[in-house]
Amino acid sequence: MPHLSTSVMHRLPSGKTTTADRLLVAAGELMTERNSIDVSLHDIAEKAGVNAALVKYHFGNKDGLMLALLERDAVTEMANLEYLLAQPISPSAKMRLHIAGIIKTYHQFPYMNRLIHYMLHESGGEAADEVSKFFVGPLLDFQRRLLAQGVAAGEFRHVDPVLFYTSLVGACDHLFFSRHSMTRAIGVGPVTDQVCRDYIAHMETLILDGLLRPERAVS
Amino acid sequence: MPHLSTSVMHRLPSGKTTTADRLLVAAGELMTERNSIDVSLHDIAEKAGVNAALVKYHFGNKDGLMLALLERDAVTEMANLEYLLAQPISPSAKMRLHIAGIIKTYHQFPYMNRLIHYMLHESGGEAADEVSKFFVGPLLDFQRRLLAQGVAAGEFRHVDPVLFYTSLVGACDHLFFSRHSMTRAIGVGPVTDQVCRDYIAHMETLILDGLLRPERAVS
Repeated sequence: MPHLSTSVMHRLPSGKTTTADRLLVAAGELMTERNSIDVSLHDIAEKAGVNAALVKYHFGNKDGLMLALLERDAVTEMANLEYLLAQPISPSAKMRLHIAGIIKTYHQFPYMNRLIHYMLHESGGEAADEVSKFFVGPLLDFQRRLLAQGVAAGEFRHVDPVLFYTSLVGACDHLFFSRHSMTRAIGVGPVTDQVCRDYIAHMETLILDGLLRPERAVS
Repeated sequence: MPHLSTSVMHRLPSGKTTTADRLLVAAGELMTERNSIDVSLHDIAEKAGVNAALVKYHFGNKDGLMLALLERDAVTEMANLEYLLAQPISPSAKMRLHIAGIIKTYHQFPYMNRLIHYMLHESGGEAADEVSKFFVGPLLDFQRRLLAQGVAAGEFRHVDPVLFYTSLVGACDHLFFSRHSMTRAIGVGPVTDQVCRDYIAHMETLILDGLLRPERAVS
């Protein structure tokens, strides 16, 4: 995956946007380093090497900056999905890559999952609308088209795309959102690279093939 | 399902616990009526017909009352799971009933999902530990035993119980936790009885049989 900021760097006109980009890159890196979305505007500005007052100028406030960061990431992710959909491989192979892609993206950018939850559930309604618009809508639309490809190819059962989205995204999300509480309850460790790989393999089999053994699934 | 408070009513010694029970019942009913966990201690006490000061006496504070409510519900749910595990039906049939049970319980008691999220993610660490201890741990333990039954009966593939728990609970949880944002993004309606029935059917097929059509799953 290319560095996430690339597309926005290219998308925006040059000039004063350079400062905005630097702030977004700094915010993403800082949250990744600290493994927390609880970073101050002061620290973000310092890491970006710009005056903290410029955050207000470019983004209004911290929620505005976080929203811009999520939108930057969403643009990249959705471009990857369009690319995947157009590949000359089977719908099943695309679905496996999509499942792995969701889990890898959450793992690579731990702040993304938490920011989405924060924006959807704790910030004001307007930020939630924005996140829905550039994350939930396009992702659902992608899955709708992939599911249709799979049904047309005779590979997939017919499933309701909204219900499928809910189950797949919910299951992927929960690895990152719930691991903390599971660590407490049952002593499982954090989400390491190995846990991530194991979960990808688990989800590919569960979503594509189901829990039943093949000879039972047919009967 | 019996009225949730029954088991606690019987479990606790009579006397001053009657007031505590009345407060728990009132809190559950009030949050269900209002479809929100944002209820005041004053309103809970009023509905229970007891003095608000007694909340402090019995539960310390509102988080204490909410924790006691979740524990009451957890005790009932875990008893149902033990009952299910002992039934003379196939592991596949038990798994279908379990999936339906999770979704129905969240639907019937909408506050439960939100309270668990609140306790695990927003309240203090001690409350999160408690919720993990009486919800996450026993539910995982039940699934571990059911999965073992299914493998022993030759019906299930071998899956890691922790990863399976994450995917199943995450998928069920997401219907209730994410519907609000999906309503915004794509205009789907709220979680009605019909949506719930549809999701149960979807999840039973997805988890047991997978997305691939049977003749493909075998190949």
